[in-house]
Amino acid sequence: MKSIALASIHQQLQPFIHNTPILTSTLLDQNIGASLYFKCENFQKTGSFKFRGATYAIQQLNEEQKRRGVVTHSSGNFAQALALAAQRLGVKAHIVMPNNAPKIKKQAVLEYHGHITECLPTNSAREAAAEHIEKTSGATFIHPSNNKNVILGHSTSALELLSEKPDLNVVIAPVGGGGLLAGTALAGEQYTDTKIIGAEPTQVDDAYRSLISGTIEKNTHTNTIADGLRTHLGSINFPIIQKHVQRIICVEEDEILNAMILVFQYLKIVIEPSSAVALAAVIKEKERFKNQSVDIIISGGNVDLEQFSFS
Amino acid sequence: MKSIALASIHQQLQPFIHNTPILTSTLLDQNIGASLYFKCENFQKTGSFKFRGATYAIQQLNEEQKRRGVVTHSSGNFAQALALAAQRLGVKAHIVMPNNAPKIKKQAVLEYHGHITECLPTNSAREAAAEHIEKTSGATFIHPSNNKNVILGHSTSALELLSEKPDLNVVIAPVGGGGLLAGTALAGEQYTDTKIIGAEPTQVDDAYRSLISGTIEKNTHTNTIADGLRTHLGSINFPIIQKHVQRIICVEEDEILNAMILVFQYLKIVIEPSSAVALAAVIKEKERFKNQSVDIIISGGNVDLEQFSFS
Repeated sequence: MKSIALASIHQQLQPFIHNTPILTSTLLDQNIGASLYFKCENFQKTGSFKFRGATYAIQQLNEEQKRRGVVTHSSGNFAQALALAAQRLGVKAHIVMPNNAPKIKKQAVLEYHGHITECLPTNSAREAAAEHIEKTSGATFIHPSNNKNVILGHSTSALELLSEKPDLNVVIAPVGGGGLLAGTALAGEQYTDTKIIGAEPTQVDDAYRSLISGTIEKNTHTNTIADGLRTHLGSINFPIIQKHVQRIICVEEDEILNAMILVFQYLKIVIEPSSAVALAAVIKEKERFKNQSVDIIISGGNVDLEQFSFS
Repeated sequence: MKSIALASIHQQLQPFIHNTPILTSTLLDQNIGASLYFKCENFQKTGSFKFRGATYAIQQLNEEQKRRGVVTHSSGNFAQALALAAQRLGVKAHIVMPNNAPKIKKQAVLEYHGHITECLPTNSAREAAAEHIEKTSGATFIHPSNNKNVILGHSTSALELLSEKPDLNVVIAPVGGGGLLAGTALAGEQYTDTKIIGAEPTQVDDAYRSLISGTIEKNTHTNTIADGLRTHLGSINFPIIQKHVQRIICVEEDEILNAMILVFQYLKIVIEPSSAVALAAVIKEKERFKNQSVDIIISGGNVDLEQFSFS
């Protein structure tokens, strides 16, 4: 993907998205021994980078497809992102959500005028429900991460970042479904001195194992607080990741929580556990990143606040 | 205070401070029924607006005073602010802190090269310790809120805000020691259509009572989570508040906590309970603020994270 093509994607998205800020903390840099830049997609519309890909994917539909609407299945950030993107572009969005999805996530989809179809909380039930809507309404199915246009839309976050900070040594993004990491890799392609690295919880290390085995691996259990990273790679994003991502660093649950608290404390921003995984990876290998300039893509800030208590 | 004078103060401060962002949330606006602008001093250096006043107060010292250093007593945000401001200006800072101050606050002062003197956790012990340092070292005492230059420095937050958003109907700031509210009032003086309102926990409603009685009232107990607002007004800031502040809205503890969670959820920023008091005041009287454009000064983001738990 030529950089000029990504720049034109960014131009199409610009009226709809926030050019999210890049934050720094002198004290955190001192403590870790590297220059850290945080690209804050938690401040993106709907609270995550997913709004970028969702918007771009809808923009690429033809008029007839737009008239028929879009459909996806998601219990998380893509549900809200597609609902708002569709609303902004005057398109109907069907969102298939498991019947045990947090109330607050369903509420957000409804606030963005998304049409929710509830299903049993299994992958096969989600897929069947989405397929049924696709068939009966003619809506176009948009996968949350394994869709070319979604990946291209997601690439604009790293594109903004690298336009502003072209001399970064490393960009680290969390990897779950692989859409963000693949998009980041595409944006980084022309910056040959910048390494692209993925970060993943050890509990769901499917991407780490996939890069080693050369085939898409799955997780047998998904016991991590980084709820956005429980999914596995797809046929479209995996080859991009294989080609452009240097490696994937795996981190433990306590390291994720510790990184999340450091971000709260030093940067004063709310991030979701999935986003903390990337900082946890830097801290885990801080000797390797010493004196380097490292960007961390803060993927989102949609924390389930019922998990918190304040005393 | 003429606006031109405040502009020149801002100019002096500009190389040292962040021009903090103003954040908005469409969904929060919809829920509350007003246009809310959040001036984010949690992103100021040292995590609160206090860095503005601390820096300006040191800048106004003569060379001999600078050589002798500064001293203050504070267990909170002013301790860190004065320590960093002094460090940046090449001045020695003595910080008197109660021996039960949170470890993390002491650590921050030390990281900014402040010199800590511990004392017993009483007002008289704090004052005595600061006075002793003043006498023996010749350091200039700088009060955290009842100091003209500190107040003038603090005014630059609202000055930035009103330069960018001159048509605001209301600016609301929390009131504790009164430095921020007095500074905000000075900045608002030339914007005659903008009302300046204070917000205070009912548990420490000394400022509310002071405006009614016309004398500085004190609190007999300080049982509030808004730990930055437990202090009382001073002889320098009280007349400014009396003259320019329309009124003070008092809020309950559960309203403060609720507002804090809303900010986490919708704005994705970490704020301290003292800052949440201003949003709580808007929500409490939302009928009165309906369809108005209201600014809330987010005074800081230094939350004691030991108060939080994540499950």
